[in-house]
Amino acid sequence: MLIRSELPVRVTAVQTPVIEPRQPLLPILQQSLPRPLRDGDILCVASKVVALEQGRIVELASVEPSPAARQARRLDAGKDPETYARWMELILREADHVFASNVVWLTLKDGILIANAGIDMSNAPLGHVVLWPHRPWEWAKGFWQDLRAAYGIERVGVILTDARSTPLRRGFTGMALAFWGFEGLDVQKGQPDLFGRPLQYTERMVADGLAAAAVVVGGEANERTPFVLIEDAPVTFTERELRPEEILVPADRDIFSVIYNEEFKAAAGGRPAPNPTGG
Amino acid sequence: MLIRSELPVRVTAVQTPVIEPRQPLLPILQQSLPRPLRDGDILCVASKVVALEQGRIVELASVEPSPAARQARRLDAGKDPETYARWMELILREADHVFASNVVWLTLKDGILIANAGIDMSNAPLGHVVLWPHRPWEWAKGFWQDLRAAYGIERVGVILTDARSTPLRRGFTGMALAFWGFEGLDVQKGQPDLFGRPLQYTERMVADGLAAAAVVVGGEANERTPFVLIEDAPVTFTERELRPEEILVPADRDIFSVIYNEEFKAAAGGRPAPNPTGG
Repeated sequence: MLIRSELPVRVTAVQTPVIEPRQPLLPILQQSLPRPLRDGDILCVASKVVALEQGRIVELASVEPSPAARQARRLDAGKDPETYARWMELILREADHVFASNVVWLTLKDGILIANAGIDMSNAPLGHVVLWPHRPWEWAKGFWQDLRAAYGIERVGVILTDARSTPLRRGFTGMALAFWGFEGLDVQKGQPDLFGRPLQYTERMVADGLAAAAVVVGGEANERTPFVLIEDAPVTFTERELRPEEILVPADRDIFSVIYNEEFKAAAGGRPAPNPTGG
Repeated sequence: MLIRSELPVRVTAVQTPVIEPRQPLLPILQQSLPRPLRDGDILCVASKVVALEQGRIVELASVEPSPAARQARRLDAGKDPETYARWMELILREADHVFASNVVWLTLKDGILIANAGIDMSNAPLGHVVLWPHRPWEWAKGFWQDLRAAYGIERVGVILTDARSTPLRRGFTGMALAFWGFEGLDVQKGQPDLFGRPLQYTERMVADGLAAAAVVVGGEANERTPFVLIEDAPVTFTERELRPEEILVPADRDIFSVIYNEEFKAAAGGRPAPNPTGG
């Protein structure tokens, strides 16, 4: 059950200084928040700055391309061959599965379909790339613990936000790469509809909905707003141990299975549950 | 360019009485809003009540199933065969393309991948179903004109919200079935990143992000909150004629093309632009 409020849900971007690699995020947050966190807050953190805190930044010149990376199809004719091979090597190392692609390399990582294994060349110093965060669920849990201790609060949510594409649709929307401290998936199965009959398809992916709002407000470009504070969100807070596989569906059982090809179903269908800490 | 604000974005569910079929929505909205609409507001409307206003409610007993509907595979053993065939007949009539499926019938309608052609059995009187709204973009434009006239305002946005699934992921999130009065797709291509280099993948699907927030706050069950008011959203308002195909990508050109099967690419790849009014 959701805790509903008469109050508006408020979504506020938190501006910070430019964040350097390996810089701890908690002090930056504490200096940048307009007010101390309170019970009932949800804090969204752009996965990019989590990766920076973890030092997940790589100088391309330091990467030794494997033969597979050198032989991979060139998608970006603008890059010089050596840079492209180094970039490709990182994708091959980071992804659980790489699919041939058209404009980007579509990859599967931790059960999520993401372009280029989440590796980003924008917002990184020249010649460097930023990888996806390492063990995002573990990070979310740790940050949740830190927030509770730092602010002396009990009920607080953490969402690592990222961007994703949607089939047949232009543009990206925000998604939750990981979350902690609340039920990100609100399972309403069997609750009555307006006419008292049980609802059938009523699993609401609340964490993605909140992340989508955060990415509209905080942005992904040069806004320097890696944190977004959400107040009075209708969520159920929890202290239980969350498991990433709770929100995943194998490819052969999701509603899109009938449009997938066999390579994809083999790669993503019926796969074992991922590591509980998202690693 | 987005208009950014220091203010929080505020998302408020608007509670209404139960809405009857063919009941005009504007008077219900006017009676239910906590304050008159103002310049800069975005109003989200659940597509379900738009369909109700349009009278898109069908008594299943009135539907004559075609042979194709009678021969379709049974996905729901709980329904009696006659009810199932009538339900199937509506899906076949409503969808542009029906794919075989596992738990639901995955369909393509107006360029959107949606379960059961958007036909919903929940929140409808017993023995009835609610179809997807007819010409949602046209409806959004009309309601936008009505709101401007009723409240004497210029810049206002309208979003028809619905729910969608995500590949490999449990639960639904909100999406914009149509929108009007603002740039739902924010194209930031070529704008500088933190280090001054042009961003590459920076089309932000703002309308979907806002719809996702609205669906978290307003809900899709029995909350009786078909309207959600969004204040101070960072959007660019416009009076230009929007076209649904602006936000669509053919299946053979989106980043997921490499995981699609041939049937789907033939159905959704390189298709002609849909009717500008979404019909």
